[in-house]
Amino acid sequence: MNLKGIGASRGIAIAKVFELKHYDIKVEKKSITNIDLEINKLNNAINLAVEQIEKIKSIASKNLDAEHAAVFDAHIQVATDPMLKDEMVNIIRDENVVAEFAVEEVSKKYVDMFSSMEDEYMKERAADIKDVSQKIIFNLLGIVKEDLTTINEEVIIVGVDLTPSETSQLNKKYVKGFATDIGGRTSHSAIMARSLEIPAVLGIGNITEKVESGDIIAINGSTGEVFINPSKEVIAKLEKEILEEEKLKKLLETFKNKPSVSKDGHHIEIAGNIGSPQDVSGVLNASGDAVGLFRSEFLYMDSQDWPNEEDQYKAYKEVLSKMNGRKVIIRTLDIGGDKTLKYFKFPQEMNPFLGYRAIRFCLDRKDVFKTQLRALIRASEFGKLGIMFPMIATIDEFKNAKAFFDEVYQEVKKEYPNISNQIEVGMMVEIPAAAVNCENFCKYADFVSIGTNDLIQYSMAADRMSEKVSYLYQPLNPSILRLIKMTIDGAHKQNKWVGMCGEMAGDLQAIPILLGLGLDEFSMSASSILQARELVSRINYKDAQELANRCLNADNEEEVIKILKSDLKW
Amino acid sequence: MNLKGIGASRGIAIAKVFELKHYDIKVEKKSITNIDLEINKLNNAINLAVEQIEKIKSIASKNLDAEHAAVFDAHIQVATDPMLKDEMVNIIRDENVVAEFAVEEVSKKYVDMFSSMEDEYMKERAADIKDVSQKIIFNLLGIVKEDLTTINEEVIIVGVDLTPSETSQLNKKYVKGFATDIGGRTSHSAIMARSLEIPAVLGIGNITEKVESGDIIAINGSTGEVFINPSKEVIAKLEKEILEEEKLKKLLETFKNKPSVSKDGHHIEIAGNIGSPQDVSGVLNASGDAVGLFRSEFLYMDSQDWPNEEDQYKAYKEVLSKMNGRKVIIRTLDIGGDKTLKYFKFPQEMNPFLGYRAIRFCLDRKDVFKTQLRALIRASEFGKLGIMFPMIATIDEFKNAKAFFDEVYQEVKKEYPNISNQIEVGMMVEIPAAAVNCENFCKYADFVSIGTNDLIQYSMAADRMSEKVSYLYQPLNPSILRLIKMTIDGAHKQNKWVGMCGEMAGDLQAIPILLGLGLDEFSMSASSILQARELVSRINYKDAQELANRCLNADNEEEVIKILKSDLKW
Repeated sequence: MNLKGIGASRGIAIAKVFELKHYDIKVEKKSITNIDLEINKLNNAINLAVEQIEKIKSIASKNLDAEHAAVFDAHIQVATDPMLKDEMVNIIRDENVVAEFAVEEVSKKYVDMFSSMEDEYMKERAADIKDVSQKIIFNLLGIVKEDLTTINEEVIIVGVDLTPSETSQLNKKYVKGFATDIGGRTSHSAIMARSLEIPAVLGIGNITEKVESGDIIAINGSTGEVFINPSKEVIAKLEKEILEEEKLKKLLETFKNKPSVSKDGHHIEIAGNIGSPQDVSGVLNASGDAVGLFRSEFLYMDSQDWPNEEDQYKAYKEVLSKMNGRKVIIRTLDIGGDKTLKYFKFPQEMNPFLGYRAIRFCLDRKDVFKTQLRALIRASEFGKLGIMFPMIATIDEFKNAKAFFDEVYQEVKKEYPNISNQIEVGMMVEIPAAAVNCENFCKYADFVSIGTNDLIQYSMAADRMSEKVSYLYQPLNPSILRLIKMTIDGAHKQNKWVGMCGEMAGDLQAIPILLGLGLDEFSMSASSILQARELVSRINYKDAQELANRCLNADNEEEVIKILKSDLKW
Repeated sequence: MNLKGIGASRGIAIAKVFELKHYDIKVEKKSITNIDLEINKLNNAINLAVEQIEKIKSIASKNLDAEHAAVFDAHIQVATDPMLKDEMVNIIRDENVVAEFAVEEVSKKYVDMFSSMEDEYMKERAADIKDVSQKIIFNLLGIVKEDLTTINEEVIIVGVDLTPSETSQLNKKYVKGFATDIGGRTSHSAIMARSLEIPAVLGIGNITEKVESGDIIAINGSTGEVFINPSKEVIAKLEKEILEEEKLKKLLETFKNKPSVSKDGHHIEIAGNIGSPQDVSGVLNASGDAVGLFRSEFLYMDSQDWPNEEDQYKAYKEVLSKMNGRKVIIRTLDIGGDKTLKYFKFPQEMNPFLGYRAIRFCLDRKDVFKTQLRALIRASEFGKLGIMFPMIATIDEFKNAKAFFDEVYQEVKKEYPNISNQIEVGMMVEIPAAAVNCENFCKYADFVSIGTNDLIQYSMAADRMSEKVSYLYQPLNPSILRLIKMTIDGAHKQNKWVGMCGEMAGDLQAIPILLGLGLDEFSMSASSILQARELVSRINYKDAQELANRCLNADNEEEVIKILKSDLKW
């Protein structure tokens, strides 16, 4: 019998089921009489949780790379956050209730808040709070969870969900994979699974009902397939795939530190997207040609107040230094919409995606903008810096932002004469108005980078988070391909280069078309870089151009995919 | 001293101030003991209000054309609405409060609901409820307002606000104009003022503080200017303008029943937008070439449940019959976003403008869609019908909607053999994805009509209702002009005609450019038709083409306007 979930971490595994006990804790709102005693209990539970996290962290730092182990620093921060604790204490005091109820109330509030945001980074915050508050509640209730580090035979873990804490402790030697009822590709557990290189299938819905400890299952972390007690034939087939997977891995290794070039010699850049200085290591490991998008939001969203110039400077400098002369494109603050801040109240809007955000905010709040620009300009001393403005809709906006940059540059130049005089200043093309008139925007911009996620949403007038219309999120729809073509052709007329830093740039299906349309720089998650480079090496640029032209005149995304399949010369 | 407001009804007036008393009634939540007595009071106050409205209606039907006088039928409906009364009675019963408090509570609830909607039609419903509930409250409190019908000298009325009831009673012989602190171009009073042809300036903010009865004021209903105790020079200048205005009016009269054609013989169509069958008279009065947009929403929004086939059929038939063979384009249900229904709960969405609405809804709810299509197809017997689907984003959506239309057509044909076999089936272009690929959409669509309001919002990724980003609503921005050009060129390649039914089509500044871009049909509010026809008659199509080309390469809207002004050959 087969089940289907979300392939969250590639690789195939076949092993015995280890079923994770599911604790469905219903916290009751019980009254108490001794408030001080209850607050004392809370303090003890929190302290114990911090100890537990420290222990997990020390195991994780052996299993995981530093970047991913860092999530437990975030957990310790959450556990020791005085504001969260104050809120819990207040609930105990005001409502005379047990500590676990207070913890759950506060946790629920923030989890709801964060998980309703589109931004993946903020969704992860929700997972952090959930994980930590669950630990505190378990400590309060005296529940001791099974210790996954003691597993000493080959298994695939099956559970309702796996917390980041649990995932990080998995010992690759014995844990061959995991499969869960809930979760998705962007959950912390999924990210960690990929970092650990443990195959994982999440969001299966009901696997905990279908198997029990002792069953044999096979999972395919690429396709999301799950086979329960598979036949010999299935096992044979999967084992063959495991071999192929290993072959591919070896092949990709050979593309490290190679140029990104098509079969017939057309050079492009394959770059990495990063969200913090720690992510640079992934790009370097994959020998990315550049950082095509550094989202500067993390500096703002992790902070308790507007981050100061010095802190920003350090972060930008670190990325530029680590990239060691390779290009680094940093996007200025892209806040608003669904990305909020603790210390700033955005106006209430009916349609925040069509509202006050990104460059609109920065041009309105030049004080905030200036601090970032100063930090960026100062950091330019340490590498090859490009800056790009998000959500540019009109030429005036770009000109205003650029003029302000020039003004700040002159000011900084006087204080720091060593700064670069070759900072490129470009813009995101993620609003249709910019795509259709890119030629004229590029009279002023040094380069453009296409943000496909937003471009598709606006061009289709469909919020992809809205279930009823998410079917309109169609990267390969001919209308979208036309907008990309207009952007590229427009920029090239002005001799400017065009990148893409949306999800589409790393999509193996889209790459041949984008190559054919003339895209110069593909910026993607580090884990896709080598595969993209390998793919491009097999394609003739001329063929890709022809392919792209055919796709532009298809009726729909389906037809485009059909053309892609029939046209496959690589 | 001068003030500035919103020019709401054109024309210049100079006269003595008649200051309208402002009743700032604070309804108190007073308790009562005799509930039945209070309900009795409420009944009496409602009955009296109905009598008052009947009286106003009889005066209005002499002053106003039938279409505008009909608002008082709506008022009577509100006053006698059993649901509203039930809600009021329930509040009296449940909370033991005075009737006026109950009236205000219920009124506030619906006024807030309706006035928060973007749709002008729904905003008017808020004004109706406000007007009627004020009457009932005044009756309950025993307040008798001054009778404006007794004014017997030339005056300009100044007040905080003017209700539709008050406006409709104004005697043009004596009331030369009115000026108010609040209100805007789309308020009922503004619409009535235009129908009465009384000059009006609304939304001045503080005129009631600046003048008193006996002052002389002059108002310019086009520019929104207000002059308090104007000098002789100002009066002389204004009197000259009055003469010019009268000349223009006479000139426009001569364009009735003339073809819509440029100086060098390029024919276009100038059509009217309507919201209900009553509005047809306005289009006929202005000798519009067609109805370019009939918004079918009124049938749904006025109703207590999904409107049935018969009611819809009657409305469509009425419009087609009245237009007597001239083309009528009816847009299928464009609901959702900010347009809600009493009897259907739309899903909660973070960005309703990017959500489940219009054709997305109809393709999902084929039962609702089918009823409308059946009614439309049946009505086709009575004129030249075109149907268009709103919010088309993909070719698939159009093909699906068209296939469903064909299926329903075959079904109806069997029952009603006299239906037309020449119904045109087209689509709105109001989503960027449709504009950039219009050529391929027009392989299937018989025509397209550009909806500029939404097209601009999506192309700029800016909700024009959001104060902070409303500056991005730029109809003449070169990016928008390029999208319009792509739409027109694309459709023409497939030999299909292109209309425009957004506000831009009636904008005198935009018309020369749109003409130059090759737009075939301009659909606007009836009151703009003759001016548009007169303007077009003075323009050489060749000049307009050249002008449009120059505008496409401007940097911003300002430059486009500069080109328009410097290029003015007409």
